Amino acid sequence: MEKILRIDMGAEGGPRTKETPAGAYAGLGGRAMTSGIVSKEVPPLCHPLGADNKLVIAPGLLSGTIAASSGRLSVGCKSPLTGGIKEANAGGQAAQVLARLGYAAVVLEGKPKDSTLYKIIINKDGVKISPATDLKGLGNYDLIDKVKAQHGDKVACISIGPAGEMKLSAASIACTDMEMRPTRHAGRGGVGAVMGSKGVKVIVLDDSGMKMRTAKNPDKFKAAAKEFVEGLKKNPVTGQGLPAYGTNVLTNVINEAGAYPTHNFMWGRFEGCAAISGETQAETETARGGLATHGCHRGCVIRCSGIYVNKDGHYLTKQPEYETVWAHGGNCGINDLDAIAMLDRLDDDYGLDTIEMGATIGVAMEAGIARFGDAQAAISLVKEVGKGTHLGRILGSGAAATGKVFGVERVPVVKNQSMPAYDPRGVQGIGVTYATSTMGADHTAGYAVATNIMKVGGYVDPLTPQGQVELSRNLQIATAFIDSTGMCLFIAFAIMDQPETFQALIDMINACYSLNLSANDVTDMGKSVLKAERDFNIKAGLTNAHDRLPDFFKKEPLPPHNVTFMVKDEELDTVFNW
Amino acid sequence: MEKILRIDMGAEGGPRTKETPAGAYAGLGGRAMTSGIVSKEVPPLCHPLGADNKLVIAPGLLSGTIAASSGRLSVGCKSPLTGGIKEANAGGQAAQVLARLGYAAVVLEGKPKDSTLYKIIINKDGVKISPATDLKGLGNYDLIDKVKAQHGDKVACISIGPAGEMKLSAASIACTDMEMRPTRHAGRGGVGAVMGSKGVKVIVLDDSGMKMRTAKNPDKFKAAAKEFVEGLKKNPVTGQGLPAYGTNVLTNVINEAGAYPTHNFMWGRFEGCAAISGETQAETETARGGLATHGCHRGCVIRCSGIYVNKDGHYLTKQPEYETVWAHGGNCGINDLDAIAMLDRLDDDYGLDTIEMGATIGVAMEAGIARFGDAQAAISLVKEVGKGTHLGRILGSGAAATGKVFGVERVPVVKNQSMPAYDPRGVQGIGVTYATSTMGADHTAGYAVATNIMKVGGYVDPLTPQGQVELSRNLQIATAFIDSTGMCLFIAFAIMDQPETFQALIDMINACYSLNLSANDVTDMGKSVLKAERDFNIKAGLTNAHDRLPDFFKKEPLPPHNVTFMVKDEELDTVFNW
Repeated sequence: MEKILRIDMGAEGGPRTKETPAGAYAGLGGRAMTSGIVSKEVPPLCHPLGADNKLVIAPGLLSGTIAASSGRLSVGCKSPLTGGIKEANAGGQAAQVLARLGYAAVVLEGKPKDSTLYKIIINKDGVKISPATDLKGLGNYDLIDKVKAQHGDKVACISIGPAGEMKLSAASIACTDMEMRPTRHAGRGGVGAVMGSKGVKVIVLDDSGMKMRTAKNPDKFKAAAKEFVEGLKKNPVTGQGLPAYGTNVLTNVINEAGAYPTHNFMWGRFEGCAAISGETQAETETARGGLATHGCHRGCVIRCSGIYVNKDGHYLTKQPEYETVWAHGGNCGINDLDAIAMLDRLDDDYGLDTIEMGATIGVAMEAGIARFGDAQAAISLVKEVGKGTHLGRILGSGAAATGKVFGVERVPVVKNQSMPAYDPRGVQGIGVTYATSTMGADHTAGYAVATNIMKVGGYVDPLTPQGQVELSRNLQIATAFIDSTGMCLFIAFAIMDQPETFQALIDMINACYSLNLSANDVTDMGKSVLKAERDFNIKAGLTNAHDRLPDFFKKEPLPPHNVTFMVKDEELDTVFNW
Repeated sequence: MEKILRIDMGAEGGPRTKETPAGAYAGLGGRAMTSGIVSKEVPPLCHPLGADNKLVIAPGLLSGTIAASSGRLSVGCKSPLTGGIKEANAGGQAAQVLARLGYAAVVLEGKPKDSTLYKIIINKDGVKISPATDLKGLGNYDLIDKVKAQHGDKVACISIGPAGEMKLSAASIACTDMEMRPTRHAGRGGVGAVMGSKGVKVIVLDDSGMKMRTAKNPDKFKAAAKEFVEGLKKNPVTGQGLPAYGTNVLTNVINEAGAYPTHNFMWGRFEGCAAISGETQAETETARGGLATHGCHRGCVIRCSGIYVNKDGHYLTKQPEYETVWAHGGNCGINDLDAIAMLDRLDDDYGLDTIEMGATIGVAMEAGIARFGDAQAAISLVKEVGKGTHLGRILGSGAAATGKVFGVERVPVVKNQSMPAYDPRGVQGIGVTYATSTMGADHTAGYAVATNIMKVGGYVDPLTPQGQVELSRNLQIATAFIDSTGMCLFIAFAIMDQPETFQALIDMINACYSLNLSANDVTDMGKSVLKAERDFNIKAGLTNAHDRLPDFFKKEPLPPHNVTFMVKDEELDTVFNW
């Protein structure tokens, strides 16, 4: 994993590849790599869909090794949604395969002169790029079927659906899972639109003939990896809650806490919650012959995913995540799991961020385009995006654009990116993360819910402003580090309360790269990633004024606790003072 | 003109009025008044369509007096288009009438709880506000017909069409002209959407029983006013060019200069130019029995407007301005004056900014929605806005939103506002104004075209970067002052080269208010307006990064001169250093 592949999609005569040693970027992985390259090489004021933007795809530091749950892929660029830097992050097989092929990053540069769409194949023999007219307009599922027919089912794919081809700001990038289904998405910030602007429909990764990455100190690495797995297994969240019910275990938890955004962030509790909870979902999956416990990539021991089958027992989609169930469920007043699963399937197929789409439909419902609670209307709206109708293009451009076009005032976005499934009034710590993250509203950038609600890593009262800035700051730093390792963010539950598991993670990195990092060093890694991202954003024109929640969170008290977001602006401005 | 009328549209039990002395705002007019109130009273981070925004309507310092061409009305708010402060400015009768009624400003505040639409009547007896359900959805022309039937044809109206009701970011506010037609628009920045968000369809101003405003020193005032008129009449632009051919006299001039943006800013010359020039337009109007010379408000001596009639000699619209003819003409490859006049009529009727709509259609054509040059398609697109279809809502949200929804990279906007009819590569001075104006891309904020092309106020070579920053700076300062007087900006042609005419303007203000302002003092007035606006914008999150032209102006050389925009970023950042 010591080389970088650059592909100039705008070269005269067609795409041109160049492989170089990692050089100045050696030793970086995942988000540190994507944000490193983007912040150094992309002009902050360039058009996100223009030739000067770059799409950087990077496995994490530990991807491709035997380390458990190390298969996260980072995708970075200037975001068409936020106008700032973006790292979106996905599970699935791609990171492990790319790492085993020896690539620390693949960078798509330039822009084709015409509308040719390309397929890129990377295997042990090198890189092959060919026009892929036959793939134009395909949904991710049909696309992957075609790839399977041509390349077998042992490859991993990174692809876009019609939304990415249309360069819509809610477009995601799909990664295939263990069954080679396009279900794991780098969802946020419109990364799929950037891939579309580069004219790339799919990257096929084939690591046949390649081996598992080995560590520089194999014995130490194995020992640390074992300790790490034990840590994940003994932790109640990663060892029990997530495997049993998946991320959707949170529906009841967040609803109970009164922080479940309902009807476009109008209330903090949803009366239809029991029907769409993780418990109900797991029961349904099991009863129908699906799977309630399943890994999204080989080597995962948390296995928080599952297989959602329809009433007839046929595969419909992967187990929809909590945030998806919320976005298409409670946020839109919808309490029908089958409809939500269908929406998840459609989003995956068209290549759309489920959070952005659910929030957008919530805004559209507030605009009167459909009635809250109308599941069939929600399905029709997402289908509009797939069809590329004018309404579809509006919705596919995200909640901020939809709010603008329909003149809606209550639009739950920060830096134009939709808020996920935690109301910042009911979980004030996550409000700080939403407001200040370099990514726009993003729960994964500093998951204060853990400490505010689940009392992981201590406890900070979710309903008061005290302590939230420090909490979010520390989590944002830690997350920037974790996102660079290739580790699934869920390992945070274990490492926050189990010092030996945290140490095992550091030991794995040290053993893998023959380093001597301390806990302080990895904190510094996190800080330096955030600093590079902040610097980029400032040059791109994002200021403290953009580190704010929309007005209505400060004005409308959220039932049932009837609190507003109370963290002061001046406090928000101290998040990055360390 | 010593009182301010405030109407709280969101008051319990319905709109509530309050009249106060001008107080801290005494002595301010026009843009100084609107930007003064907005910058002091509107929270910079509020939602532009929310209760905290205010719509400020203010006649200029000399409006309502006998001063020639003093009938400009300023409309200010936080802009839904740019996110910054906005002053949009219109001719017509409203400023004079409002001033004679004694109001230095009318401020619409708050937001109705429901979707009731109101009519506000202001006359010598006070203010009457009533629900106006019968006016809902009406185009400005039908609306004014209804008002005429109820209130006679001696009143002046300030109104919105369907675009304002839909709260679209390209929505304008119409002011009636001398014939009580809704043809003079405060066009830019979506002020009509803010009026719509306040639930106000029309303000009917009736000054019957009121008198012409008198000066504190009537004799001095009369003498200065006479000198001023003489200055306007002897100036070749205000005395001959504008009266004869209207603003559209510029089509040939700017095209000849190679700075006429054609096909969405692709080229600097339009082959169909002769067919839509001011000369052709005047000839057509005269031949058909229209009028090639006409004032937009009583007391105008420049009379740059006209009446455009159709082939059968029936009124179609007022004489379309140069920027409208360009926006709907050359920018879209359209060389059909009748079609352009129809587009102007539709824009006026729906209440849309002609510049924003033309630029938006250019972007839509680049996206492939219609073919460049297809006049009927352009008419259909504008009709979509009137109908409020999804496509119409996209287009009515302006060029930036349209570019986003359709994934277009070449979008000629600054701070999301569309560039007018002068390519910044061919007129580098106007590029500096576009980039740095507090208003977003706006030719009227510092009309460097005068010096770059027409050699008024000296000469600065339009095709080099030298001297443009100083030129734009001085013009922006002078303009902020002129926009505060109620004077039509065209008087600038006369006062820039005729010191005695400039002195006459200052003398009128001094005589009217019994002041002793010097030329330096009025410069300071201009600076203080700009400073208040800049301060607001900075707090609203607009930075130097927003004081830039889109990338492609720096990369794509513009034929025929094959120049890019060459003023350096660091130089742009010095515009407000004085």
